[in-house]
Amino acid sequence: MANTEYDVAIIGAGSGGYIAAIRAGQLGLSVACIEGNAYADPRGEPRSGGTCLNVGCIPSKALLASSHLYDQIVHRAAEHGILTENPAVNVRKMIDRKDGVVTKMTKGIEYLFKKNKVDFLKAQAKFAGKVGDDYVLELSGAGATSRINAKNIIIASGSKPRQLPAVVIDNEVICDNVGALKFDEIPKRLCIVGAGVIGLELGSVWRRLGSEVTLIDAMAEFLPAADPAVAKEMLKAMTSQGLKFALGISIERIERTADGAMVSYRDRAGARVDLAADKVIVAIGRVPSTDGLALDSIGLQLDDRGFIPVDERCKTALPNVFAIGDVVRGPMLAHKASEEGVMVCEIIAGQAGHVNYGAIPFVIYTNPEAAWVGKTEQELIREGRTFKSGQFPFSANGRALGHGETEGFVKVLADAASDMVLGVHVVSSAASEMIGEAAMALEFHASSEDIARICHAHPTLYEAVREASLAVDKRALNI
Amino acid sequence: MANTEYDVAIIGAGSGGYIAAIRAGQLGLSVACIEGNAYADPRGEPRSGGTCLNVGCIPSKALLASSHLYDQIVHRAAEHGILTENPAVNVRKMIDRKDGVVTKMTKGIEYLFKKNKVDFLKAQAKFAGKVGDDYVLELSGAGATSRINAKNIIIASGSKPRQLPAVVIDNEVICDNVGALKFDEIPKRLCIVGAGVIGLELGSVWRRLGSEVTLIDAMAEFLPAADPAVAKEMLKAMTSQGLKFALGISIERIERTADGAMVSYRDRAGARVDLAADKVIVAIGRVPSTDGLALDSIGLQLDDRGFIPVDERCKTALPNVFAIGDVVRGPMLAHKASEEGVMVCEIIAGQAGHVNYGAIPFVIYTNPEAAWVGKTEQELIREGRTFKSGQFPFSANGRALGHGETEGFVKVLADAASDMVLGVHVVSSAASEMIGEAAMALEFHASSEDIARICHAHPTLYEAVREASLAVDKRALNI
Repeated sequence: MANTEYDVAIIGAGSGGYIAAIRAGQLGLSVACIEGNAYADPRGEPRSGGTCLNVGCIPSKALLASSHLYDQIVHRAAEHGILTENPAVNVRKMIDRKDGVVTKMTKGIEYLFKKNKVDFLKAQAKFAGKVGDDYVLELSGAGATSRINAKNIIIASGSKPRQLPAVVIDNEVICDNVGALKFDEIPKRLCIVGAGVIGLELGSVWRRLGSEVTLIDAMAEFLPAADPAVAKEMLKAMTSQGLKFALGISIERIERTADGAMVSYRDRAGARVDLAADKVIVAIGRVPSTDGLALDSIGLQLDDRGFIPVDERCKTALPNVFAIGDVVRGPMLAHKASEEGVMVCEIIAGQAGHVNYGAIPFVIYTNPEAAWVGKTEQELIREGRTFKSGQFPFSANGRALGHGETEGFVKVLADAASDMVLGVHVVSSAASEMIGEAAMALEFHASSEDIARICHAHPTLYEAVREASLAVDKRALNI
Repeated sequence: MANTEYDVAIIGAGSGGYIAAIRAGQLGLSVACIEGNAYADPRGEPRSGGTCLNVGCIPSKALLASSHLYDQIVHRAAEHGILTENPAVNVRKMIDRKDGVVTKMTKGIEYLFKKNKVDFLKAQAKFAGKVGDDYVLELSGAGATSRINAKNIIIASGSKPRQLPAVVIDNEVICDNVGALKFDEIPKRLCIVGAGVIGLELGSVWRRLGSEVTLIDAMAEFLPAADPAVAKEMLKAMTSQGLKFALGISIERIERTADGAMVSYRDRAGARVDLAADKVIVAIGRVPSTDGLALDSIGLQLDDRGFIPVDERCKTALPNVFAIGDVVRGPMLAHKASEEGVMVCEIIAGQAGHVNYGAIPFVIYTNPEAAWVGKTEQELIREGRTFKSGQFPFSANGRALGHGETEGFVKVLADAASDMVLGVHVVSSAASEMIGEAAMALEFHASSEDIARICHAHPTLYEAVREASLAVDKRALNI
């Protein structure tokens, strides 16, 4: 440890923390980034990258890519005139590939730390009062304890899976996201508790590989945060792929059995259902993680949901203590955390950092993907805003036809008076990439007419963004 | 034929003409769209959709999708832990699927014509003087001749393949784009004359399916219109896929032989090469097509390259005669033609149509794809502009790693003083979809800082657009 006094100490090396550390280094601040979570590290050493990189977005996307290819071979190759025999999956190899991607990226972050002169401290951090204006952190790791001082603290300690009362996660049969990413064989019967983003993505992976997948959720409404048109299209698409849904249920018990687990719940009508499964994934959301930080030692209080209260610039109630990412209000998204990390470091360096919380995109990486940015229709109705809506289906898009991926649509919502784009909602095989144009439209306060006047390359999927914008004015060309 | 006098008559039902016809209909103009080319119609009847839909972009994209999947199965499945045996291609079925996509889309256009009250006239059109202010067109088709009058004419007659002197295209062995899209088996040895967009796309299709593909080109420079970084990366990628290139050659002779064709050329050093091939594709560019229009009968002159001279609003030298798309100056791109079609109809209807020729995207649909919009580095140097450049490689992008598609980069060029984005250049598996954000940035005169300040969804490929924008200011975060 070269330094015991820093301009900035960052607790957590996930998407928020590691990006903040790099930005702090770029800005010439002396910076430590502290991480105590080993995630999937084979030696049990703390690793950079956080949940997203180690046991979240990145590994799930690697498995989604692999399982998508398998699905194409099994279900789609024939229509292209491609013949194969005996397609099969070596699950161990698929998981190893995923682990390889993760390892490569964590190594990349450690390279970036060195390049930007970030001290990466592998330890559990805990507040231990102040010395003058500096905060003191006590670090425990590798059997030793030490202390560092820092003028500024950024808490980026992330989140952890929400627990289901009285259900024991063993990560062998009854799993959270960690266990769900390392199955050693394809479960014949998979039950996923929670039909949200994580449930849909992991359910897709294993369904494509052949599992019978049932998603159960206490909410009666599917994807309630999504625009209703998106939720409806996604439910249709997921159901057509063989995912089974039981919504509006209430869990009674999940227990290990001799050959797997038994999930007992009451269905919407109140009838008792016993669902036998080889594996269970509990994915009912995530809660902020502040374990062991001893926030009370500096007088920092959590709100009643366990979040650290911050203002829109991520300042806590204490001077020079910031908090970012999943541990504060707002969507638990890696890119939201990174944006906040950059903002906070720029503010510390005396610059004008900002985050536009109205233009943070959401993505679900199933196939089709769903992605959106800005307001949903139900939000606009709730706010009493008058708006126009334009929609264009991929069944009328040349490239979607060429790819044979014609599910989904683009929906553009614009202010009825000014025509300013208020929200863009996409269901498409490439929704995640198309949302870039939409987010920029929101940032520039574009009108739907503006989008409609921009030349869109042909043949592309993203032409549908233009067509939906034209549809706002009832002048879509290709429908 | 319900009407013999129209507000607008459009010659050609390709990407420019059919879109113009729909827009004219939307604007309440009475409109005829005239097409005499049957393309691949099995009954030999004139078809809507033009070169792009019938024998260009759309069918090639369908074959690119099919061959990409085959390539993934053969070359990439194993690394994902996916095992298959005896992968094979039924070329007839692959071609039939492609034809199905095309047929579906041409039917879609004819539905749109009806919906928008466009008279679709299947005939060859020819100018036959004027009656008062109206132009008279003589139409020949299905053994009959008729005449229509129109206040406004839009010439959207498109382009045709450039011929190689003394080379006979038979579309069996020695093919242009038409024959190249209907091979009935995989040629063992394929020679493509022309290493441009069409050559690379078709070369990729057949290379993936197993052909030995050699591309030969008179130009010594590869993709001279692309940014040098793009050209270099693409040459590397295409070569690594087994495409062979001979650049700076001069063709001497291409002749049928007993078992295919012999292509004789002088290589860069002047040595004679005889290349035997089972199939030859000539793809050395396209020239404007004004065959049979009798433009001289109304006094409309072509320029010395065969184009119809127009101003920036597509007005010809004659009142109320417009020309759009491949038959006028500018890139021969479907979306450029469509934009011009919309503009012209809006001008005819008294609105303020416009096309921003500085923000028309280019795409090459290989894998990786290349796409760009705005200025290349060599154009900026030629114009004496001072600029900054930022580049970010996909090898440092999480989603690219997850997909195993890490070739390529995003390169952003911005004005050295104002930071305004001047050009964006992408090589990536999804470059075509990512260029949407870039085109919008150019239209809004965004700075690279603007792009860098927009929250980009993680993990996506298009995050690289933000990273390259950050790199303009030497503060990319993930490299």
